[in-house]
Amino acid sequence: MDFQPSEKSQAYLAKLKAFMAEHVLPQEQAIVAENRRLNEHVDWREWQVPSAIDELKAKAKATGLWNLFLPDAELAEGLSCLEYAPLAEETGKVLFAPEIFNCNAPDTGNMEVLYHFGNEQQKQQWLSPLLNGDIRSVFAMTEPDVASSDATNMQARIDVDGDELVLNGTKWWTTGLGHPKAKVAIFMGLSNPENDKHNQHSMVLVPLDTPGVNIKRMLTASQDYDAPYGHGEVEFSNVRVPKTNLLVGLGKGFAIAQGRLGPGRIHHCMRAIGAAERCLELMIKRGMSRVAFGKPIIKLGGNMERIAQARMAIDQARLLTLNAAWKIDNVGVKQAMTEISAIKVVVPNMLQMVSDMAIQMHGGAGVSGDFPVSMFSAMARMLRLADGPDEVHMAMVSRLELKKYS
Amino acid sequence: MDFQPSEKSQAYLAKLKAFMAEHVLPQEQAIVAENRRLNEHVDWREWQVPSAIDELKAKAKATGLWNLFLPDAELAEGLSCLEYAPLAEETGKVLFAPEIFNCNAPDTGNMEVLYHFGNEQQKQQWLSPLLNGDIRSVFAMTEPDVASSDATNMQARIDVDGDELVLNGTKWWTTGLGHPKAKVAIFMGLSNPENDKHNQHSMVLVPLDTPGVNIKRMLTASQDYDAPYGHGEVEFSNVRVPKTNLLVGLGKGFAIAQGRLGPGRIHHCMRAIGAAERCLELMIKRGMSRVAFGKPIIKLGGNMERIAQARMAIDQARLLTLNAAWKIDNVGVKQAMTEISAIKVVVPNMLQMVSDMAIQMHGGAGVSGDFPVSMFSAMARMLRLADGPDEVHMAMVSRLELKKYS
Amino acid sequence: MDFQPSEKSQAYLAKLKAFMAEHVLPQEQAIVAENRRLNEHVDWREWQVPSAIDELKAKAKATGLWNLFLPDAELAEGLSCLEYAPLAEETGKVLFAPEIFNCNAPDTGNMEVLYHFGNEQQKQQWLSPLLNGDIRSVFAMTEPDVASSDATNMQARIDVDGDELVLNGTKWWTTGLGHPKAKVAIFMGLSNPENDKHNQHSMVLVPLDTPGVNIKRMLTASQDYDAPYGHGEVEFSNVRVPKTNLLVGLGKGFAIAQGRLGPGRIHHCMRAIGAAERCLELMIKRGMSRVAFGKPIIKLGGNMERIAQARMAIDQARLLTLNAAWKIDNVGVKQAMTEISAIKVVVPNMLQMVSDMAIQMHGGAGVSGDFPVSMFSAMARMLRLADGPDEVHMAMVSRLELKKYS
Amino acid sequence: MDFQPSEKSQAYLAKLKAFMAEHVLPQEQAIVAENRRLNEHVDWREWQVPSAIDELKAKAKATGLWNLFLPDAELAEGLSCLEYAPLAEETGKVLFAPEIFNCNAPDTGNMEVLYHFGNEQQKQQWLSPLLNGDIRSVFAMTEPDVASSDATNMQARIDVDGDELVLNGTKWWTTGLGHPKAKVAIFMGLSNPENDKHNQHSMVLVPLDTPGVNIKRMLTASQDYDAPYGHGEVEFSNVRVPKTNLLVGLGKGFAIAQGRLGPGRIHHCMRAIGAAERCLELMIKRGMSRVAFGKPIIKLGGNMERIAQARMAIDQARLLTLNAAWKIDNVGVKQAMTEISAIKVVVPNMLQMVSDMAIQMHGGAGVSGDFPVSMFSAMARMLRLADGPDEVHMAMVSRLELKKYS
Repeated sequence: MDFQPSEKSQAYLAKLKAFMAEHVLPQEQAIVAENRRLNEHVDWREWQVPSAIDELKAKAKATGLWNLFLPDAELAEGLSCLEYAPLAEETGKVLFAPEIFNCNAPDTGNMEVLYHFGNEQQKQQWLSPLLNGDIRSVFAMTEPDVASSDATNMQARIDVDGDELVLNGTKWWTTGLGHPKAKVAIFMGLSNPENDKHNQHSMVLVPLDTPGVNIKRMLTASQDYDAPYGHGEVEFSNVRVPKTNLLVGLGKGFAIAQGRLGPGRIHHCMRAIGAAERCLELMIKRGMSRVAFGKPIIKLGGNMERIAQARMAIDQARLLTLNAAWKIDNVGVKQAMTEISAIKVVVPNMLQMVSDMAIQMHGGAGVSGDFPVSMFSAMARMLRLADGPDEVHMAMVSRLELKKYS
Repeated sequence: MDFQPSEKSQAYLAKLKAFMAEHVLPQEQAIVAENRRLNEHVDWREWQVPSAIDELKAKAKATGLWNLFLPDAELAEGLSCLEYAPLAEETGKVLFAPEIFNCNAPDTGNMEVLYHFGNEQQKQQWLSPLLNGDIRSVFAMTEPDVASSDATNMQARIDVDGDELVLNGTKWWTTGLGHPKAKVAIFMGLSNPENDKHNQHSMVLVPLDTPGVNIKRMLTASQDYDAPYGHGEVEFSNVRVPKTNLLVGLGKGFAIAQGRLGPGRIHHCMRAIGAAERCLELMIKRGMSRVAFGKPIIKLGGNMERIAQARMAIDQARLLTLNAAWKIDNVGVKQAMTEISAIKVVVPNMLQMVSDMAIQMHGGAGVSGDFPVSMFSAMARMLRLADGPDEVHMAMVSRLELKKYS
Repeated sequence: MDFQPSEKSQAYLAKLKAFMAEHVLPQEQAIVAENRRLNEHVDWREWQVPSAIDELKAKAKATGLWNLFLPDAELAEGLSCLEYAPLAEETGKVLFAPEIFNCNAPDTGNMEVLYHFGNEQQKQQWLSPLLNGDIRSVFAMTEPDVASSDATNMQARIDVDGDELVLNGTKWWTTGLGHPKAKVAIFMGLSNPENDKHNQHSMVLVPLDTPGVNIKRMLTASQDYDAPYGHGEVEFSNVRVPKTNLLVGLGKGFAIAQGRLGPGRIHHCMRAIGAAERCLELMIKRGMSRVAFGKPIIKLGGNMERIAQARMAIDQARLLTLNAAWKIDNVGVKQAMTEISAIKVVVPNMLQMVSDMAIQMHGGAGVSGDFPVSMFSAMARMLRLADGPDEVHMAMVSRLELKKYS
Repeated sequence: MDFQPSEKSQAYLAKLKAFMAEHVLPQEQAIVAENRRLNEHVDWREWQVPSAIDELKAKAKATGLWNLFLPDAELAEGLSCLEYAPLAEETGKVLFAPEIFNCNAPDTGNMEVLYHFGNEQQKQQWLSPLLNGDIRSVFAMTEPDVASSDATNMQARIDVDGDELVLNGTKWWTTGLGHPKAKVAIFMGLSNPENDKHNQHSMVLVPLDTPGVNIKRMLTASQDYDAPYGHGEVEFSNVRVPKTNLLVGLGKGFAIAQGRLGPGRIHHCMRAIGAAERCLELMIKRGMSRVAFGKPIIKLGGNMERIAQARMAIDQARLLTLNAAWKIDNVGVKQAMTEISAIKVVVPNMLQMVSDMAIQMHGGAGVSGDFPVSMFSAMARMLRLADGPDEVHMAMVSRLELKKYS
């Protein structure tokens, strides 16, 4: 349970903080404005990435702040989950920052799947360009017609037809689908209904230009399209891919999903913690600089107590997440199920509370797009649903708790 | 304290419910879709109102469901605040419904100002077309550069120059400014800095086509432009209007504002209660129709308790609001300050909680635009800031409470 | 929905307030101290009632403030549930006050049972002395060995043996059992296991001096024996009473219980609201009179917001309870199930919150016996369990809510 | 930030757990009952300690589980704050357990004061018998007449008169004062009003049999005397002690208090975390063993979610506390002010929430003395006030947070 970042991690953190301070934070508002200018009144098919993003990506890559999430010393920097955690937190402070370091969801999770479960050909075809930041990927799992909180509800089909797999079904909340560089989906579907519940589904790599892949629309999330990333609804109609696009084997979907989730949740949660720190910072600065009734507004009513509550909630959430990261690194995902589910509940709820406080301290500006606090709130709201809603994870935590007594 | 709706009120409620059921609810999704089609990728200068809205307005007017908010028996239906309350609740169930009955903010508040404080000429010029639903109006009070929770912070200037008033300053959150029919603003500004704190400001009628009125942008509120209404940021640069555009007199701004706020808060709150009832209904229907882990999701985890908590919170908030309405009708706004401030805190927070629960029960669909629950949540968030943030109203309630003991 | 107290109710309220101000509040501390002196280091068998209580009872009776709870114009004052509600609130401000007006639980509920369901002989024998305040009664329903939140779990037996009923079983939380004047129990037990679930139990009158009634102990509730009332655990071993002691008939226990609960909950809740008002008053007075860090402590941190939150919560809870009372009076208990369950959850939780805030504002004195706030907190805690825990009532509210859609 | 208990700490923890399982837990109920038998109806002057306590103390001492809190390798086991933390947690699971290991408040804090700040003579006279467990001590700081949350309010006087110090004033909440072995008080009072605010007070050792020390009463805390420990109110009337009883020097009271608080809060908090774990365990066991409406009650309503919420809150609170302990050990109390204040708020509030849930799951038994959950709830309530109320510590956390930006 040594949560102290290693020297290596600290060195990366220092470099990352310097990069954020020098290159990212000063451009934050300009990039947000440019993104709005490029994409706001524009159909998703014409979305563009602000050019500054690609410039920053190149700079980050050159600086060695690239693929930090991947625990491989050759392909990346070889940072453990716990070593990467404070770096993820740092990137979370600016909404678009993770992409700059090629550490953005869902690509990180997808790269991990390819890294751990892809064969050589699959890695070469998809992992390499993803690690290079040349393309982006999506994850097609959630379905509009069933309660996807119970993943075994999934109805999309994967049928074997000779050397091909035939995919049918509708997916939504395939995040990143609107990005100009989105090239490949990991599709999860029902392939082996004859098996027991957790061995019925498979994962398949689907190039997005395959015939039959019909993107129906982008969804708003809390009123936002999140351009140029987007959350897509996409129909797969008799989509045919070679059997070699199958990951691991038929019926192995849940086994892969399981492995994917642990570190991915650490990443999500640490970014959310960074977002909460940013909200707290903005909230304090706003509260100290505005005056009402003769006082800085931070001194009015219960505002100072809210600062303390935010600090206490953030610190607890961070320690809980670092502890989960430590357990993943040291005893493995399977022994960290309580911890991983717990952070999935605690951290987004904490961010929702802290960002809500920050909005309130900003007054009308808080719900506007002039500060990132409203978007952080929307992100928190989304995270309470994505990858399993609060309720599913609380059920996991309590079930494991009861097991101790039976 | 008789909250029972009068027979008259009940008759209007029955008619209104029938209208909602027959004409509004069946078209809700189509109108939302049409609105998106018309306005989503469009600069606010080109926003359009879905034609169905105007058709519904005409129908409502013909049915006598028009200007129900105005307690005047000749100009409208002569309903008291308490009699109108359940009608406002009903209109709150659909986001765009209030406009259909010419009962939408900020026009209702502005019409009340004109009705109570406008002179004959002002009424003829502006109140008549507003009551007819031919034009819309905005209220220009909040400013970007100061903490507007303390209204005495207002910096925009009103200077007398002969027979003219000269207006300078920047306002934002002027809701409805993007609507094609928005024609006039009630502008509030500092005219008499030499007076005591609550007699320094005045209200002036400003036609929006007056030279010097420069709309700089529409703001997003929780990521939404709320087209075709919008929340504007608008600069007033040496805007000149005749002195006859002054409401009541110089320095009377706060006195007018005070009178405006009581009934307006009842309206806002009752609409929010209607929104909460709608959220609860949608939450139950979704929860009963989706299945996970072998059960309707409403039966999982703490979901049933949340239904009860929503019901208990809504019923309490409604009674509190009806009580405030009753007090306004029977003892006057000045004797109802605790009640009016209390509902301003309780109701939006209640809606935020209930809509958040409803979002969660819908899963991903909850944050999408496919159901109104996310927009109701955004509305709640906005209401916790508009017309004074929670903190200002809690300060009022506690100050009055302490007075009882000093 | 006219919650305005009638003129009659207002007249009683004025008289009651005067009585409280003149006779009860000035003696409160002395009576609490005397009660401690008499009973603190004493086995419950020797508990005594402070003589001032009996003096106050006589005075209240003489003043016509007696049995106000009973809606009978001959036996009492003929006040409806809604008319009595504000009186119950007033008595709730002092812990021992309800007894002074012969309006204390569980006697009120038991008298109602006898009034509505007792035959002439039963009324003469038990109702008369109870109405006179000469004796006290207890209600023996909850059992230690089963989850009594599900009343159909009750295991105590009532067997018919000729003209006698034979009672066996253990009950606890028979409140008031330690009082020197406690003379009779209403015992509920399983008499007809062959019937359907809600017709298996009966209620029987049991004089407490019947052989086989063995009081095993008094229980502490939140560390307090609540002398001289007490919460008893009592064993019934082959207790024989004549069949004429049966209420209504065999298997009618639940039918009687149902009728007993509605008004009783109004009484409990209104008293709790009075307790909350008292807590708020004490909290403000303490907060204004103590100074720390150069300010009255009420001005520190979030204390002023807590005052507002208490006021808003109390007012909502009161309106909800008055609404339930109105429904009981006007449409009957069966049509008010949601309302009755809702107040059973809302009000005790509100009191728990408000009394907790009051404790905190008092510092160490708050948890001591020097102020009633700690006992009000204990009372709130108990009320969240008595007569069905929160969870059972939330289940009722949500079940009825779902029914609207099925 | 390595929170992993050292091997040494783990070894002690194993031994301690074995001791608890073998000697303490099996006797818990019997000792509680014996304590009630001995002390319940008895004036505090005659309180006795159940003989089993002394037997267990002897056994613990013989086993080497003694004075574990003291970071001295000769006088005790030389455990750091972090090494002791999990041991403190373990002892917190049973209310009277800390005393068995000579690790109970306020003796631990007082021994630390003597250890760090006492001179040789003082150590010999008082520290030795305390370390031996032969006597007990109290801490006399809080005063009834002022808001003691602001310690500079303290009014009790220490006057120098030749070679003597003369003490005058009234203290309350001197915990442990009723214990038969209580022999000495550390008295804090105003000695140097001419100094600046934090150098005006001194600490003096006062044998409790010194003339002028008049114990006026024991206070109840949440209705409980906490016999045989008690919370005393005590008057010091011209109490004379030799000047050699002064700790460190005149005006050094706050400096000593500061040093005392850090580790003491870790101890308090870790014990409270142990209490919360015990509550969770009892709550689960009760919930699994009782049946209502055809199911174990733990499966009803939101109960399973509450289990998860308890687990998540406990784990967060523990990590926060371990982190504070680590900082005290590694960077010192002065650099850990945020952390120490944060746990002082978070942990008692967490215990209040978890114990409240546990009470609710136990039904009526929960508020009775049959399970420790109600006492744990009372302990939580007390801890939110003792050593500074929540509000003071939140003010500290937020003040330090703002400092980062000024």
